[in-house]
Amino acid sequence: MAKEKAVGIGVIGFGTIGTGVVKVLQRNADVIERRLGFPLRLVRVVDLDLETDRGVDLGDVRFDSDSDSLIEDPAVDIVIELIGGYDVAKQMILRSIEAGKHVVTANKALLALHGKEIFDAARKRGVDVAFEASVAGGIPILRSLREGLAANHIESVYGIMNGTTNYVLTQMEATGEDFDVVVKRAQELGYAEADPSFDLDGVDAAHKLTLLVAMAFGADLTYKDISTEGIRGLTPVDFAAAAEFGYRIKLLGIAKAHRGPDGEESIEARVHPTLIPKTSLLANVDGAMNAVAVCGDAVGPTLFYGAGAGELPTASAVVGDLIEIAREVRRGAAGRVAPLSYLPHELSPRPILPLDDIVGRAYLRFSALDRPGALAHISGILGDHDIGIESVSQTGQGGDGESVPVLMQTDPVRESVLREALDEIERLSDLSAPTRLIRIEEEL
Amino acid sequence: MAKEKAVGIGVIGFGTIGTGVVKVLQRNADVIERRLGFPLRLVRVVDLDLETDRGVDLGDVRFDSDSDSLIEDPAVDIVIELIGGYDVAKQMILRSIEAGKHVVTANKALLALHGKEIFDAARKRGVDVAFEASVAGGIPILRSLREGLAANHIESVYGIMNGTTNYVLTQMEATGEDFDVVVKRAQELGYAEADPSFDLDGVDAAHKLTLLVAMAFGADLTYKDISTEGIRGLTPVDFAAAAEFGYRIKLLGIAKAHRGPDGEESIEARVHPTLIPKTSLLANVDGAMNAVAVCGDAVGPTLFYGAGAGELPTASAVVGDLIEIAREVRRGAAGRVAPLSYLPHELSPRPILPLDDIVGRAYLRFSALDRPGALAHISGILGDHDIGIESVSQTGQGGDGESVPVLMQTDPVRESVLREALDEIERLSDLSAPTRLIRIEEEL
Repeated sequence: MAKEKAVGIGVIGFGTIGTGVVKVLQRNADVIERRLGFPLRLVRVVDLDLETDRGVDLGDVRFDSDSDSLIEDPAVDIVIELIGGYDVAKQMILRSIEAGKHVVTANKALLALHGKEIFDAARKRGVDVAFEASVAGGIPILRSLREGLAANHIESVYGIMNGTTNYVLTQMEATGEDFDVVVKRAQELGYAEADPSFDLDGVDAAHKLTLLVAMAFGADLTYKDISTEGIRGLTPVDFAAAAEFGYRIKLLGIAKAHRGPDGEESIEARVHPTLIPKTSLLANVDGAMNAVAVCGDAVGPTLFYGAGAGELPTASAVVGDLIEIAREVRRGAAGRVAPLSYLPHELSPRPILPLDDIVGRAYLRFSALDRPGALAHISGILGDHDIGIESVSQTGQGGDGESVPVLMQTDPVRESVLREALDEIERLSDLSAPTRLIRIEEEL
Repeated sequence: MAKEKAVGIGVIGFGTIGTGVVKVLQRNADVIERRLGFPLRLVRVVDLDLETDRGVDLGDVRFDSDSDSLIEDPAVDIVIELIGGYDVAKQMILRSIEAGKHVVTANKALLALHGKEIFDAARKRGVDVAFEASVAGGIPILRSLREGLAANHIESVYGIMNGTTNYVLTQMEATGEDFDVVVKRAQELGYAEADPSFDLDGVDAAHKLTLLVAMAFGADLTYKDISTEGIRGLTPVDFAAAAEFGYRIKLLGIAKAHRGPDGEESIEARVHPTLIPKTSLLANVDGAMNAVAVCGDAVGPTLFYGAGAGELPTASAVVGDLIEIAREVRRGAAGRVAPLSYLPHELSPRPILPLDDIVGRAYLRFSALDRPGALAHISGILGDHDIGIESVSQTGQGGDGESVPVLMQTDPVRESVLREALDEIERLSDLSAPTRLIRIEEEL
């Protein structure tokens, strides 16, 4: 049987993930060809830095800084964009599409903001844009939402979508160390970037949740509407209290579909630290690992677990996309599946339920001055707002000498009501610092 | 825009899953069409039983017992085989293929034994055979192995693949009740069939593992080579001892690829009750839920969790397959992906590593007569075979009056050596019953 012609691959961005992609294409060429029937051939690599030793031998693969020429190269069928960021990456993707190339990217930030424009351009040109690596690294969650669970009305999608914060939270809990100490070590070990703000402030998780919300509910991309809160300000006291109450603290992206009394649909979408029952599967996802849960009306609860970042896990997702596109190239079936799971004209803006309207239990840490009456004042105001206290704990530990932490779990309460009560409590003279609120989710 | 023509569906077998498929096609028709751009239209349903009320309204869908006519009906594009069993199901599938119909099935038993013949016939006729529902119910594990993780050399695949046994094990552990009591309740609640042997003896899990082994390693279907042991004979003592030692007991299907010193590959594939660390994710998969872990050389460890059986979860997988095939029908792209992940000519027989050669730790429950010297005799024989004892526990509980259970964890030992020692121990006059061996896996 005559050997089928290879599909040509061009990589733009030869950093960590780009290096991983080259490694996987090289060392797994045999297994890829046994599945495809033809090889994926790395044709060109582009980066501005031509000096750094990446520890891989590119052989006779052309390696230079000329992205224009890569995009126009007729030997390149699929362009992999791995430079990240917004403007340049967007231009390169749009120019690749214009040149009739399929595109694979891991750029969730770009897609969360400009996905519509990019997907529209690809559809008009008849090429694919694949982005499995952009959410939860190596876990094939997008493919599962888009195809495996396509028979379902998706009811909720939530999970641990950022490995850096999960590493920091796991370490803080295990060691009892302060946030800054753990973040510094995470940077030294390569789990956190030099500027870790995007991760620590929940922005990265919100980018990923944006894509999941679109694919789960057929909602227009809604990044700006997602209420986002990061993990700064958590202290060892919070982890100890969570454990005492039977929970662990995880930074979750959470999205749920709601149907109002007269049938109108709205969506809840938020990123914040969350107390979840310590026996739940999600609570036991530790270190830099990710896990995404999907509930569908037919399938019920599902969970997808794996490495959310890293050179090779991310490359696994990128090369998986290459394999899929290569199949479609050969069968003339590009555009077989809509990138956001729903056909483009079926994506529609959806009202996002304001955080204020969400009802749930809460964990509260008050920094109360160590004097008579403080607890009575706090609980009095909560009572005035009809907020039930399920448990309270005041250990005397973790304070700063003048103040002690008072730790509470409330009954279910509307967020706006709780916020009003907390504002009132802030005005008391009994507190030495702002109150920390962490939402509790039982159902996850 | 003119509405695209529907893809026609015929269902053979209107039992639990067939009813679920009809329900999902009816109630989720909107979301399916928003993803596909055209409807899936249920055209015909066939069953021998035309009387039982399934609780769904078939409307003007033709419902009769004439499978021949369904298979030949030009309005039927995809035939769903849901009658189970071997001979008749196989005939119907082969005749459907011959008639140019695509086929969806949940029949793992049939595929584990006759998959090659069926997949060959489909390839020659240019139609698809999809079977996501046959392994782990609603979890899209086959699609993930075949596409999402296709860039990887798969190193291992293992997990909880049978909901009935997982329900029984979870209940035995939670209640301390005996096997027979729990099985009876499982039957009353619908978690176990009237004849639950296929489940309890591990046969069903071995069928599923057969398909996973082929897809993971490119091995010819190897059902007959899989060493299979069910959950009969486990007692409340075993669960208590496992907990004391830091484990839980799960019935696992386990497959790993091994590469010998001179590069030859062999496969380890077995189904048996297993002690796994109680903090592992897999150990926390309870009730009738399933979870399958896959380790790939690039992606690292992954886990896929969800309902492994049931009307609607299984229907979720069946209808997911319908959606995929419908897309391929429209694009003329049938056969886009090889059903067993590797191209048919790349599947090859692989030596199965004999269970005797596997090295691992073991849990042993000896029923020792309550008299001096028994423990010394047992541990003496283990010592003669160089089998290290990591811990031993003799509580005096759970015995039958004359004998007491002696519970041990061994150091890693080759199965053949352990079997020799146990044979020798059986010949002692110190035991009142055969010894129970449960393998321990730390890495899962």
